[in-house]
Amino acid sequence: MSGRGTVRRLAELTTEEAASAVQNSPLVIIPAGAFEQHGPGMALSTDLVRAEHVADRVAAEVDGLAVVGPSLPLGVSPHHIGFAGTITLSTTTFAAVVREYVDSLHRHGWRRVLVVTGHGGNNASLTTVAQDLLVSHPDLEFAWTPVTALAAEAVAGMGVGEVHGHSGEAETAQMLFLAPHLVHPDRLVAGTTSLAELDPTARLSRRGGHPTLTLRYDRLSATGVLGDPRRATAADGESIVDAVVRRIAEFVRAWPTA
Amino acid sequence: MSGRGTVRRLAELTTEEAASAVQNSPLVIIPAGAFEQHGPGMALSTDLVRAEHVADRVAAEVDGLAVVGPSLPLGVSPHHIGFAGTITLSTTTFAAVVREYVDSLHRHGWRRVLVVTGHGGNNASLTTVAQDLLVSHPDLEFAWTPVTALAAEAVAGMGVGEVHGHSGEAETAQMLFLAPHLVHPDRLVAGTTSLAELDPTARLSRRGGHPTLTLRYDRLSATGVLGDPRRATAADGESIVDAVVRRIAEFVRAWPTA
Amino acid sequence: MSGRGTVRRLAELTTEEAASAVQNSPLVIIPAGAFEQHGPGMALSTDLVRAEHVADRVAAEVDGLAVVGPSLPLGVSPHHIGFAGTITLSTTTFAAVVREYVDSLHRHGWRRVLVVTGHGGNNASLTTVAQDLLVSHPDLEFAWTPVTALAAEAVAGMGVGEVHGHSGEAETAQMLFLAPHLVHPDRLVAGTTSLAELDPTARLSRRGGHPTLTLRYDRLSATGVLGDPRRATAADGESIVDAVVRRIAEFVRAWPTA
Amino acid sequence: MSGRGTVRRLAELTTEEAASAVQNSPLVIIPAGAFEQHGPGMALSTDLVRAEHVADRVAAEVDGLAVVGPSLPLGVSPHHIGFAGTITLSTTTFAAVVREYVDSLHRHGWRRVLVVTGHGGNNASLTTVAQDLLVSHPDLEFAWTPVTALAAEAVAGMGVGEVHGHSGEAETAQMLFLAPHLVHPDRLVAGTTSLAELDPTARLSRRGGHPTLTLRYDRLSATGVLGDPRRATAADGESIVDAVVRRIAEFVRAWPTA
Amino acid sequence: MSGRGTVRRLAELTTEEAASAVQNSPLVIIPAGAFEQHGPGMALSTDLVRAEHVADRVAAEVDGLAVVGPSLPLGVSPHHIGFAGTITLSTTTFAAVVREYVDSLHRHGWRRVLVVTGHGGNNASLTTVAQDLLVSHPDLEFAWTPVTALAAEAVAGMGVGEVHGHSGEAETAQMLFLAPHLVHPDRLVAGTTSLAELDPTARLSRRGGHPTLTLRYDRLSATGVLGDPRRATAADGESIVDAVVRRIAEFVRAWPTA
Amino acid sequence: MSGRGTVRRLAELTTEEAASAVQNSPLVIIPAGAFEQHGPGMALSTDLVRAEHVADRVAAEVDGLAVVGPSLPLGVSPHHIGFAGTITLSTTTFAAVVREYVDSLHRHGWRRVLVVTGHGGNNASLTTVAQDLLVSHPDLEFAWTPVTALAAEAVAGMGVGEVHGHSGEAETAQMLFLAPHLVHPDRLVAGTTSLAELDPTARLSRRGGHPTLTLRYDRLSATGVLGDPRRATAADGESIVDAVVRRIAEFVRAWPTA
Repeated sequence: MSGRGTVRRLAELTTEEAASAVQNSPLVIIPAGAFEQHGPGMALSTDLVRAEHVADRVAAEVDGLAVVGPSLPLGVSPHHIGFAGTITLSTTTFAAVVREYVDSLHRHGWRRVLVVTGHGGNNASLTTVAQDLLVSHPDLEFAWTPVTALAAEAVAGMGVGEVHGHSGEAETAQMLFLAPHLVHPDRLVAGTTSLAELDPTARLSRRGGHPTLTLRYDRLSATGVLGDPRRATAADGESIVDAVVRRIAEFVRAWPTA
Repeated sequence: MSGRGTVRRLAELTTEEAASAVQNSPLVIIPAGAFEQHGPGMALSTDLVRAEHVADRVAAEVDGLAVVGPSLPLGVSPHHIGFAGTITLSTTTFAAVVREYVDSLHRHGWRRVLVVTGHGGNNASLTTVAQDLLVSHPDLEFAWTPVTALAAEAVAGMGVGEVHGHSGEAETAQMLFLAPHLVHPDRLVAGTTSLAELDPTARLSRRGGHPTLTLRYDRLSATGVLGDPRRATAADGESIVDAVVRRIAEFVRAWPTA
Repeated sequence: MSGRGTVRRLAELTTEEAASAVQNSPLVIIPAGAFEQHGPGMALSTDLVRAEHVADRVAAEVDGLAVVGPSLPLGVSPHHIGFAGTITLSTTTFAAVVREYVDSLHRHGWRRVLVVTGHGGNNASLTTVAQDLLVSHPDLEFAWTPVTALAAEAVAGMGVGEVHGHSGEAETAQMLFLAPHLVHPDRLVAGTTSLAELDPTARLSRRGGHPTLTLRYDRLSATGVLGDPRRATAADGESIVDAVVRRIAEFVRAWPTA
Repeated sequence: MSGRGTVRRLAELTTEEAASAVQNSPLVIIPAGAFEQHGPGMALSTDLVRAEHVADRVAAEVDGLAVVGPSLPLGVSPHHIGFAGTITLSTTTFAAVVREYVDSLHRHGWRRVLVVTGHGGNNASLTTVAQDLLVSHPDLEFAWTPVTALAAEAVAGMGVGEVHGHSGEAETAQMLFLAPHLVHPDRLVAGTTSLAELDPTARLSRRGGHPTLTLRYDRLSATGVLGDPRRATAADGESIVDAVVRRIAEFVRAWPTA
Repeated sequence: MSGRGTVRRLAELTTEEAASAVQNSPLVIIPAGAFEQHGPGMALSTDLVRAEHVADRVAAEVDGLAVVGPSLPLGVSPHHIGFAGTITLSTTTFAAVVREYVDSLHRHGWRRVLVVTGHGGNNASLTTVAQDLLVSHPDLEFAWTPVTALAAEAVAGMGVGEVHGHSGEAETAQMLFLAPHLVHPDRLVAGTTSLAELDPTARLSRRGGHPTLTLRYDRLSATGVLGDPRRATAADGESIVDAVVRRIAEFVRAWPTA
Repeated sequence: MSGRGTVRRLAELTTEEAASAVQNSPLVIIPAGAFEQHGPGMALSTDLVRAEHVADRVAAEVDGLAVVGPSLPLGVSPHHIGFAGTITLSTTTFAAVVREYVDSLHRHGWRRVLVVTGHGGNNASLTTVAQDLLVSHPDLEFAWTPVTALAAEAVAGMGVGEVHGHSGEAETAQMLFLAPHLVHPDRLVAGTTSLAELDPTARLSRRGGHPTLTLRYDRLSATGVLGDPRRATAADGESIVDAVVRRIAEFVRAWPTA
């Protein structure tokens, strides 16, 4: 699936192979998605699909150093609940799932875990898990990373507009590259692309930096889309994915094992 | 993947298609697995793989009546935690995930949900969810079903021994039929096959019916296997899967919608 | 109360006697009930009354091997909440009570606990407790058992109809034998006895086996009764109770202590 | 059991009688106990036994105005966990049980609930339940009361010493009057009776009023007894119980219904 | 701030000074308030202000023996939620905060903690924390105390009426002495002062002793005031505060340290 | 305290004034701190002190538009628990406190809340609260902001080194300006200032951007300090605070009220 080294997925291993992996592959990479609207042109599973592809490619890049754990298909998506098909966990439940998942890995001997989340709505909960683990599992090292945010340069190179993001240029490009069967090019429509389209509160919430004001997406875009996904190409997607994988793989190789 | 009718998976739908599905496909089928040891010859994801295949085939059988929701890859597996690679949720967290999943579906308008669990360890938690939903969501109808248990006749026809079950004849047969790449025929070994191999307490726990005494699997089998998976054939697997799918599909068709 | 051996109830012991019991009576039997409607002819406490009598009789049968712990009068009864007088705990709270109860026994040195539940609605929660204890208290052995289900033959011998169960032939018979002052023979009425009386969804929910669909009892029976309690006799009740006690006592005697 | 008016116990009613009771008996009285050590001479169930007797007698006194609900046999007893046989719930779980019990009564139409607790260790949790109900069930009136504390005069008349209380003069007297079969007069021993027997911290914790310092009972008394139970008589017990019942009954009669 | 000895407040210490304090000041005093209505004449922070002043004065009195920890500004105030500005925690959350606070102190080596609460609504939750700590932190000694209740004599000397208490004579006097800038003498009004002003249920709830019936304050007083705050003087406040501080300081000095 | 407009603090208002504030001051600003080590030269309360000053100054700037609510003195500080004096809440409890605080404000009619946190460790939990409120309180607008991060330019102008941050140049400067009595200039020491001082894992954790790896501070710095606080001046602090206040005030003024 990734074209380079070998990908070891825990889901495909036997328990005996898992026991070996604890010794030989000291890192577990967990792909985390969301199950939420991605506009009229992309599938509800978009975030997980991207996370899984990135996790696999990273594992291939660091050949043998990491195994890919089972995926987390459901994430924290209350801001999309107004759109049909979105399934969300509360922040508490999502964090509990990650905590118990990591605790199981810890029981088997793993001490390094990296979550790759295709969905920014999981970031805060992943951080709270990282914090609580400092007290409950002091000998564990837990890291997490978003996807698209690691390829800021490649995204900027796409010439995105004033408002962009969810289900826009960058996510669509990745999907055209990684899973084109989940994109309907003919149904892609421009979502909100300029601040002027927003009501004043929504506009305020889109300013960079802080203070941070979180709103539901039905207030930001009638279609749930921010940016113009029609401008996306598979080539852009490849650039983004390559940058993301390179950056994470470099991090993993730099992570001392013991 | 199923060869008969059309399978609609929510994961592949857009939000607009999901909105239509609420109207046209009044039932959501959720595949639930476990992530746990399946002996030296089968993959850790065995239970989810079987649940997903069954869910897809049922959806195909009832053509259009049901959509398949995103999978639950992690289940309740504390009894297997002694074997490397097993990842378990607590019963409370697993139930919370299902409850919030179902609540999201309910917000979009679905009123019928069926969980297909490839792992018997989830049965009790699914029942507690069903009970709590009677008070919290009185207008929802929630059903769940195991897999192998629906094909008792086909399994009996395989000539299983005194002790069989987890990772034994029936599960291996299903995997040989559905996902042979996740089975290593050369590594299959007979697990515990007779009561005489067990210590008296373990023997007591394997008696049919009640009282029920739950033990960890490291007490029941050195390899984690109950029964002799070497006796399994893909043809047996097909008989089991066919029986299971037929039984569930019949249930779904009998379930009034409205 | 039981007529055979000696019944030791923790409730009647002093702390010093309890300390001795930890040494001499390695098993604690916990009677669990529900507090719920039992139709127009039987008392709300029916399930606890039967569980307590069975627990006492088993303790008498295994003379000295077991002590009877304090009862759990409230169970999981959301399906009966539509009928006046029903008091229900959530599945989470019921499980917490059992877990903390067992943890206290464990602190005093007991390592074997058996819950006898007169109410099937508790089964799933008891199983979740058993599962969680495998991780939290690995040196404890926890078993549970229903009552009526252990006497399938005796019940079949009563000639029950197509639909029977809650507050029907078997439960009424037990009460006529064990606690006739809590039965009003003149008020006993036939409840739902045939599938034809049910709406299609309710009918589906009464099919044996799986999938399992749980409904509220106000949908199954106007009086809350399934079956015809007027056909019950005290003699039938004695047969049922004897079978149940024999079966559980045999289990207890087979349970190695140490 | 009480000798005066009629006692209606929910446990003995049918669901139809319970429906009538909602109309005719606007108050539910809940007896709450503890399951904990009461020294070498009294049973572990002492607190529940006294609460049940008092509840019954109050119900008889206010003839028809109140029904007695099912008992709560387990309470908050962490301070006694050092003594064999004590079973304790956490404060959180005990409060959850009471809250869900009361919520069930509220669903059936009751709006007045009184808990009679034979165990002072439940007082704080009962108060937290009362506080939370002000927000969650604003149309419910929830009261609770201890037992012995209502008979301060009668207890003072017994001539108790400097240190007295748990399993001492007053509790033993009540049991000699109400349930003499649960008292072993020959095993009654004097527990801690003077401050001089205590270490300085324990002495501090026994001063009346505030600040309040809570210690485990194994620090206060080798036998778990405070005071001298040998001085108790059934006649003293009758005086105490009469005073307690009179006081509660007067409260109940003064409680407006509607 | 207190005029006598030295007050050490953790909030003003560095981590190195805190490390020394663990050795030299074996007791931590925690001021706990509420944030709730105090009638038309006093500030919402009244309870915390009084608790902080008392804590500081006690620390000064026992010179060096105790440090004052950070304050708990929010308490358990559901009974005042009907009045604007009141902020309340649930009893569960308030207890969790105290438990985690104390656990942190325990990790640093402190073994004695005293909470001074200016708000009676916290009493029950503080007691539940004390109970749970007996099991979770058996080597910790945890005490708590109210404020005004320690000066019963001084309050009685003010000649209060039949109904008095919240935001009445005693609390206002303390504030006139400790924080006159938070009192508006011209806006002080008499609240409920006699039982006759109350409806029968409210009257019942104000009887001393037990049973205890908790009502919302909007049912007890239109202004939220019980008693006549206009009768308060700063001199009375000084008497009350002096008595309270003396009593607590005496307790602290009597508390053995190791 | 702020020198410009008027500061309205809820803590100083009466309930009647709070009722007016709901109408006239549609925004509540909540200062949130941490209680944690700030090296050998600054007080444990540093983060709250800064948050409170900023909140007050913002309220003064937007004259009348906002009220300042009571402070949250305890935050999420597990990474500092290795240093004496640090008091931490779990992420779950901190979030529960904020949620219940905001729910109380919502009951009184406020619909806009802004938390100013002086501690970055609270950021993730505040975000989870914001997410959960989208479902539970859809008509509420909840924002939060850190402090120092809003003055990136001013901080950069101080010429900070390769490693800086906690208790370093910027925080010390703010304290020298706002609360010099809580700084001990003579005890300020340089903490970790270059990556070379760190072990490889710690070095990895300090790289900007993602992946994010969270470590305990005892692994990052022997004194708990990152950067060189000796380089801080009150003038720098004033620049930082001015920039922060300006930025937040501008946000508040841009926030539509209704």
